[in-house]
Amino acid sequence: MYGRVALIGLGLIASSMAHAMRAGGLAGEIVGYAKSEESRAVALEIGFIDRAAATAAEAVVGADLVVLAVPVGAMGAIATEIGPHLMPGATVTDVGSVKQAVIDAVAPHIPEGVHFVAGHPIAGTEHSGPRSGFATLFQNRWWLLTPAEGTDPAATARLRHLCESMGAKVDEMDAAHHDLVLAVTSHTPHLIAYTMVGVADDLRRVTDSEVIQYSAAGFRDFTRIAASDPTMWRDVFLTNRDATLDILGRFTEELFALQRAIRLGDGDHLHAYFTRTRAIRRGIIEAGQDTSAPDFGRAQPPSGGR
Amino acid sequence: MYGRVALIGLGLIASSMAHAMRAGGLAGEIVGYAKSEESRAVALEIGFIDRAAATAAEAVVGADLVVLAVPVGAMGAIATEIGPHLMPGATVTDVGSVKQAVIDAVAPHIPEGVHFVAGHPIAGTEHSGPRSGFATLFQNRWWLLTPAEGTDPAATARLRHLCESMGAKVDEMDAAHHDLVLAVTSHTPHLIAYTMVGVADDLRRVTDSEVIQYSAAGFRDFTRIAASDPTMWRDVFLTNRDATLDILGRFTEELFALQRAIRLGDGDHLHAYFTRTRAIRRGIIEAGQDTSAPDFGRAQPPSGGR
Repeated sequence: MYGRVALIGLGLIASSMAHAMRAGGLAGEIVGYAKSEESRAVALEIGFIDRAAATAAEAVVGADLVVLAVPVGAMGAIATEIGPHLMPGATVTDVGSVKQAVIDAVAPHIPEGVHFVAGHPIAGTEHSGPRSGFATLFQNRWWLLTPAEGTDPAATARLRHLCESMGAKVDEMDAAHHDLVLAVTSHTPHLIAYTMVGVADDLRRVTDSEVIQYSAAGFRDFTRIAASDPTMWRDVFLTNRDATLDILGRFTEELFALQRAIRLGDGDHLHAYFTRTRAIRRGIIEAGQDTSAPDFGRAQPPSGGR
Repeated sequence: MYGRVALIGLGLIASSMAHAMRAGGLAGEIVGYAKSEESRAVALEIGFIDRAAATAAEAVVGADLVVLAVPVGAMGAIATEIGPHLMPGATVTDVGSVKQAVIDAVAPHIPEGVHFVAGHPIAGTEHSGPRSGFATLFQNRWWLLTPAEGTDPAATARLRHLCESMGAKVDEMDAAHHDLVLAVTSHTPHLIAYTMVGVADDLRRVTDSEVIQYSAAGFRDFTRIAASDPTMWRDVFLTNRDATLDILGRFTEELFALQRAIRLGDGDHLHAYFTRTRAIRRGIIEAGQDTSAPDFGRAQPPSGGR
């Protein structure tokens, strides 16, 4: 499908792409670059890249697909470095969780005759690094592409086909709209989870071991989210600032209304609110975007049980 | 272990207890009562109770263990009703998520010669009702007992043994401290998850189908939490008001500090905060209270993968 793919960054997403491309025979050769020498060595040892390059510029030479899989804040510097070495006709994409900021940082460095199609696979786990990838990460997950107006439709179609061949469902949308949607479905929830875990850690009247031992479902789920890569998430909030602050403002407003209902003992308000939110869960399960197994399947009912 | 157990309420916890007691041969006879006739019929159909009683008062006659498994706000009325019918020497316990309010509501109605040992199994799923129970729900989970001073140690020990026989680890603590710990590890996280899901539902610029389709890990996890039983959670917040408002205050304070860091572009503050919260996750996994499988095992790495 692509003769030579260059992966810039060798973390969870890049290594999962490599495993998936290998499994599907989707790339002739996979060349990898990561800033950390250890990551390059691990990638070679696991064998999901054919060759490690010493620099990003070296990695992209002769590649017909270049994937930028570094934290969002590092994209601009990488683009500046690789720009002059990109092969005419090549496609450059990225996998950043924020799209407008990446486009602003990368597009100016893409030379005439090279196609830039920004993208975002909505898939991941709380683990990071070259050992965390696996071929099925993108199965049944959405991969959003945000090509700028005037992008060669053939380049976009070819990239879309690659994503689909790795198991993903692909949609195209405007970068700004992408950033707002993700602020709701991912960025703000992550910030809130980080905050709640930090509060627990700070609370001197409750010991750490109590927080850990008696972590019920709510908090356990938050700690998983709050174990995600700190650099990646720092960059997400810095680069999707306006949408995140917008959604955070709405969140605080609603939280204060519920807090007031608790203070005033307004049970009807609470009950009505908690009933409404059940419907969204049903929608997510019906759309095949999560399991209906209790507790994500962590608690194992006997076979035949629900 | 107990000759006759009366379950008042036949939801997730009661039905799981019944399945676990059956599996372990821990109860001679299990009598059940629920306000809803349908729940009683389902319990009999599934067969996790031997007999359904028409009233709570009838259910407790001759029972040497009575388990109050109704929403916290309904405990007082049930205790008033069953008080005169409790067998001398019987033990009454409950499974409510809040302890001080339950003790205040129930203890005055427990006659001389009957033992009241309040309790809370820290286990559950987002499902509710008599069909949602399963025997292994309590495996390796904590069951906190909060007996009042002066409670017969033999009654507490017998109940502790039952909980352990259902697979739980048991700890005893003061009711007020329990309520603070749970406000941190469960109640406040639930309120926050409900709020975030409500915000997403309200946002007109992002369609419901987008929220559902593109729900990334953060939000998907929140929707699971926010699908829990509305009545149970309404009562938790109304009865653990002070501790919840206390933790919510700290949460908002921290959230505002992070929000300010985003607005000012203070990446160092964000990175340091996000790094610190990773340690708590490691603690929970090391304590055996959660799985280290990526994404709770929802995403399936190939065998041999991490």
